[in-house]
Amino acid sequence: MQLEAVVRRLELEQLYTDYVHCLDGDELEHWPDFFTEDCFYRVTSAENYEARMPLGLIHATSRNMLKDRVSALREANIYEPQRYRHLVSSIKIVEEGADTLDLTANFLVVRTMQEGDMTLFAAGRYLDQVRRQDGSWKFARKDVVLDSRQIDTLLAIPI
Amino acid sequence: MQLEAVVRRLELEQLYTDYVHCLDGDELEHWPDFFTEDCFYRVTSAENYEARMPLGLIHATSRNMLKDRVSALREANIYEPQRYRHLVSSIKIVEEGADTLDLTANFLVVRTMQEGDMTLFAAGRYLDQVRRQDGSWKFARKDVVLDSRQIDTLLAIPI
Amino acid sequence: MQLEAVVRRLELEQLYTDYVHCLDGDELEHWPDFFTEDCFYRVTSAENYEARMPLGLIHATSRNMLKDRVSALREANIYEPQRYRHLVSSIKIVEEGADTLDLTANFLVVRTMQEGDMTLFAAGRYLDQVRRQDGSWKFARKDVVLDSRQIDTLLAIPI
Repeated sequence: MQLEAVVRRLELEQLYTDYVHCLDGDELEHWPDFFTEDCFYRVTSAENYEARMPLGLIHATSRNMLKDRVSALREANIYEPQRYRHLVSSIKIVEEGADTLDLTANFLVVRTMQEGDMTLFAAGRYLDQVRRQDGSWKFARKDVVLDSRQIDTLLAIPI
Repeated sequence: MQLEAVVRRLELEQLYTDYVHCLDGDELEHWPDFFTEDCFYRVTSAENYEARMPLGLIHATSRNMLKDRVSALREANIYEPQRYRHLVSSIKIVEEGADTLDLTANFLVVRTMQEGDMTLFAAGRYLDQVRRQDGSWKFARKDVVLDSRQIDTLLAIPI
Repeated sequence: MQLEAVVRRLELEQLYTDYVHCLDGDELEHWPDFFTEDCFYRVTSAENYEARMPLGLIHATSRNMLKDRVSALREANIYEPQRYRHLVSSIKIVEEGADTLDLTANFLVVRTMQEGDMTLFAAGRYLDQVRRQDGSWKFARKDVVLDSRQIDTLLAIPI
């Protein structure tokens, strides 16, 4: 492994780190910036993923659809004063394409309610494809594959 | 990114790794060594942090106060035979100062009681400032910002 | 720290990453490949570990015994349609031997039942020794030290 490979590895870790802090900091307006314009984003269950069911709890085929999602979440304005905390680990390069990388990583999301109750909100893996664009890595595809069938929330939020 | 930047990134990861193993191994007497002499350390809730409430569950303005804290914990000798396990991820350099770095990272602490019950003890983020001293990084400032309002413990422990 | 040290660090992270995805992906047949032929593998409680009790929930002294374990698990065919998700963090080189490295790392395993219930399945630390063999790192020894006394499962699975 040469320095270039090391640097790339750290850049990819950085991508997930920034992504996670964006979500946990409730900076959802910046969330679509992590994706390419023609991205695919989906939150689905492992069961549906394995059965190749196309749809999911969230399903978007462009960055604009992600922006719409954020607008909908902001407008819905459902009063859920919880906080989410993502733990991501075991980021792995699964395949190297010509100008893309296929990645997987494990995640756990813990939710804390205003009164202090903490729950395991979601666990699963990311199945992602990233592409280098304008000097940084963007998600061209992100499949959020939940270990559970669904997530306990009124309006599905980005994970 | 050059080799120096890569090395620094790994050094910072190492700092959190050592910090975590110190706490989980109940080697509290070594815990103050991770801080500068004039450090600031606080455990507070996200709510209080955002409202800029100065105090916290733990509040110390020097390494000596951290040592006192450890002594108090040892003397209190409250029989709580639990084990704590920290998971830290998404360490991020937020800002580079002249001789300091501002960092943030996510953490999750799981508590296991002697009978085997496991609970989510704390989740949140570290908001830290580190300074290089005698060849290693030390915390000049550490704000442990809990997603919840409080932690379920008789005597607040270091996180 | 030179490039070699950086590369080694990333290789070790890669080892845990691959190990975790092997287990979470239920590719148990590949699990023994992470070990040397004369490996030692054990799952035990912190209590037993500290009391130097030799046995554990799982106890194997060769790679072949790990293969037998996998066969037993497959043949038992207990219908437990859950999913496991490992989070590993704070990988630390504890000691460098002539041709081995002693490592420790924290882990958390979350279990999701088919109906969606998620539980903290296990937390603890790995106490490992790795050896370089045929160009990759293998576990010559792996002590899985659980914070709890036992794990809630009919047939102890690899962790």
